[in-house]
Amino acid sequence: MTMHEITQATIISAQERITEYVHLTPVMTSRIMDRKSGASLFFKCENFQRMGAFKMRGATNAILSLNSGRKAKGVVTHSSGNFAQAVALAGRLTHVDSHIVMPENAPSVKKAAVEGYGGKIYISASNIKAREEMADEIAQITGATLLHPSNDMDVILGNSTAAAELLEEIQDLDYILAPVGGGGLIAGTALAAHHSDTGCKVIGTEPSNVDDAYRSLQSGKIEYNTHTNTIADGLRTNLGDINFPIIQNYVDQILLVEEQEIIDAMKLVWERMKIVIEPSSAVPVAAVLKNRALFEAKRVGIILSGGNVDMMNLPF
Amino acid sequence: MTMHEITQATIISAQERITEYVHLTPVMTSRIMDRKSGASLFFKCENFQRMGAFKMRGATNAILSLNSGRKAKGVVTHSSGNFAQAVALAGRLTHVDSHIVMPENAPSVKKAAVEGYGGKIYISASNIKAREEMADEIAQITGATLLHPSNDMDVILGNSTAAAELLEEIQDLDYILAPVGGGGLIAGTALAAHHSDTGCKVIGTEPSNVDDAYRSLQSGKIEYNTHTNTIADGLRTNLGDINFPIIQNYVDQILLVEEQEIIDAMKLVWERMKIVIEPSSAVPVAAVLKNRALFEAKRVGIILSGGNVDMMNLPF
Repeated sequence: MTMHEITQATIISAQERITEYVHLTPVMTSRIMDRKSGASLFFKCENFQRMGAFKMRGATNAILSLNSGRKAKGVVTHSSGNFAQAVALAGRLTHVDSHIVMPENAPSVKKAAVEGYGGKIYISASNIKAREEMADEIAQITGATLLHPSNDMDVILGNSTAAAELLEEIQDLDYILAPVGGGGLIAGTALAAHHSDTGCKVIGTEPSNVDDAYRSLQSGKIEYNTHTNTIADGLRTNLGDINFPIIQNYVDQILLVEEQEIIDAMKLVWERMKIVIEPSSAVPVAAVLKNRALFEAKRVGIILSGGNVDMMNLPF
Repeated sequence: MTMHEITQATIISAQERITEYVHLTPVMTSRIMDRKSGASLFFKCENFQRMGAFKMRGATNAILSLNSGRKAKGVVTHSSGNFAQAVALAGRLTHVDSHIVMPENAPSVKKAAVEGYGGKIYISASNIKAREEMADEIAQITGATLLHPSNDMDVILGNSTAAAELLEEIQDLDYILAPVGGGGLIAGTALAAHHSDTGCKVIGTEPSNVDDAYRSLQSGKIEYNTHTNTIADGLRTNLGDINFPIIQNYVDQILLVEEQEIIDAMKLVWERMKIVIEPSSAVPVAAVLKNRALFEAKRVGIILSGGNVDMMNLPF
């Protein structure tokens, strides 16, 4: 399916497909955050999603979109983060085998989580080439379908359901902000907003330290990061050929924030909203606080992408 | 008003009185917490209450229950914790002056919070006698009404509305658990459960290190702590002559938990439920995890009393 074949009906189909496997997450508001931003903020709480992140939506939709022959042969992915857990849990819930390639340096708590969700773990060398090769090999041997965490239209469609729910629940949003990592969340968000016909604009938000998407929109081709030195560990990856055209067409702009702004925004949300969000989720919060002139008196949705945090290693 | 004059109608009146000033907080559930406890758990999220704790309910009800002459003269309390903030905010919302005596060693962030809510701060020596004397003096000079944080029937009635909401929303609860500090929350919870006529039992939970309420129920008189060495800083105080008879009559039992169990339960809730709770709120969670035989297959409500935590000083 290409970008131009997506309609509002496609997105609604994805919602219906995944609804029994994912949470309809709450939308939170906060007087304090409204006062600090000058805007009316609506937080879509994917930190409360199953396995703790929006990735559950994309993984579930991608698996359920396979035909029965493909389902019988399972799925394979490589990830050290939330997508590994999402594929493992979605696989278990839908009775599809999941093969998860994880780098040898992945934290043991993440390996335990994947195993707990029923994924079969394969340990590779930690470089991306070794991970990809092992995943390819597993796909060839088992016939399992390779799932990419962000550059896959069914994953993107699954992700789009978070913004679709937000737009259904909250009327007259001027903007939705989401973090940009591999591009799968922002592309899904942009598709949902575009096809909602509400006029709601979508803004991507990115750490200055990994501003590959910002530069990609400027240059018109996919750019890469020379280093990935950001606390927002979910946002270190680059865009792909499937999500980049969607971002080019439907994302209004990308705003950049600094590391200290991300940490401050994360701490503020924990302290005042009493919810646990991961650093990647604090990026759009930091952007709305930083750009008061743009958002003042506007109705702004923020996708809080996840809440999986190592409590023993907090930045404050 | 004495304990025996309280009816279901009294509690409903308190609910109606405070409804426009407080949040109707959500009730959360968690598959993971259910699996770990073996019970069906329903978390009443007073950490999402205004100013971050259930104290807002009691303070608001107490202020609104004053006659107009008393309201005009303001209220006074002494507290270094959540009740100070609650009285300040409730006072501002109801246009009643609030005088707050705080000990000189109170954290500056707490003083700033009280000031931010519009309370007038008075700094006393840090011992309890100096605080009480200063509060009495302010009451004499200004004519302000002295509000006790837990041993006041209108405060207790305000607190009862949290459990009343929980019992309205969730049917057929076998138990409600709440922490026991000064006794104002557990007494209100017990009144709400008793008058709901649902048969729901109320269990108090307390750190072993400050087990004054546990010993009070055994001895039949109010007992005191010889030290207050617990991480659950909201639970260091003792019961009072107004709430103790309510606890004696309507609380089924008190369960004790150790410091490490409190810390582990707090970390578990942050990690898996993605919400910020303060150590006092982790006490009933620890109790339900510790006493599996008692709660297995039961429907158990837990009052998460608050979420005001110093992020720079976490126990994990």
